[in-house]
Amino acid sequence: MTNKLVVSGLILASLVGTILVTASGTLVAEKWRIFDRTPILAVLTTQQNDWNKGDIRGFMAGYWNSSELTFAGTRGFTRGWQPVMERYEKNYADKAAMGKLDFSELEIRQLGPEAALVLGKWRLQRQAGDVGGIFTLVFQKFPEGWRIVHDHTAQSPPETKQ
Amino acid sequence: MTNKLVVSGLILASLVGTILVTASGTLVAEKWRIFDRTPILAVLTTQQNDWNKGDIRGFMAGYWNSSELTFAGTRGFTRGWQPVMERYEKNYADKAAMGKLDFSELEIRQLGPEAALVLGKWRLQRQAGDVGGIFTLVFQKFPEGWRIVHDHTAQSPPETKQ
Repeated sequence: MTNKLVVSGLILASLVGTILVTASGTLVAEKWRIFDRTPILAVLTTQQNDWNKGDIRGFMAGYWNSSELTFAGTRGFTRGWQPVMERYEKNYADKAAMGKLDFSELEIRQLGPEAALVLGKWRLQRQAGDVGGIFTLVFQKFPEGWRIVHDHTAQSPPETKQ
Repeated sequence: MTNKLVVSGLILASLVGTILVTASGTLVAEKWRIFDRTPILAVLTTQQNDWNKGDIRGFMAGYWNSSELTFAGTRGFTRGWQPVMERYEKNYADKAAMGKLDFSELEIRQLGPEAALVLGKWRLQRQAGDVGGIFTLVFQKFPEGWRIVHDHTAQSPPETKQ
């Protein structure tokens, strides 16, 4: 009788354990399974459109509005949403300097329930000459949506002409 | 009586809901709370030591051994552990070219239960002249430990001498 009770207890404990594990496992698994690239792509499409309207502030809406936002460029790190915007405003003084932006070869990889890595190429078509390169973006999901929390953008060296 | 039953049902449902939410919330919160930067720092320290011994294969142990590993450099993306190693072997043919590596100003940010972003600076002291720059690393946690799944490394343009 005691053995039976112990066994029942063990079965009950293991069942409860299984249910708990399955419940949390399912929740986590569901979070991962429902990972949807669409809202991240939408942020990038909006950025591209705003850039091509000459709207740097609109473009900046894709970034995390925080003093902890980081941007890694050719000359080192820029920290904070406002300094990152000022960097863009300084480097792209008018619509002609901004040119026509195209993102291509986008690759979106999930890093967790609320984080993603985006790799891709960028190109600016400009009368003064095209420029382009590659980028690494880290996105995190906030109550307001997915935002870039870190941007590492590199400009390709000019192609040598012969 | 019916109302009381409905109310009891609602209370029960909300209690069960709360318990489930709290259970999964606690599990997630605990995963986040115990985030420990030490194993990530250890990977980078081992990489630095192996590099300074001229051991590129040892250095490569810090990277995810996968065809999905990505490296973003000056000339675009390199994909896969083997091609990334071959890139290092080509660019740093011997111990003199490898020089003495130092990582500095490391910043480790958690991106989720099993992902982290690492920013920092690198410097190679070499007889042929020092080089350095900044990097963005994305780490993920695997059964074998934390590994770099994406590396974006930039070399600073040479300082102009006057």
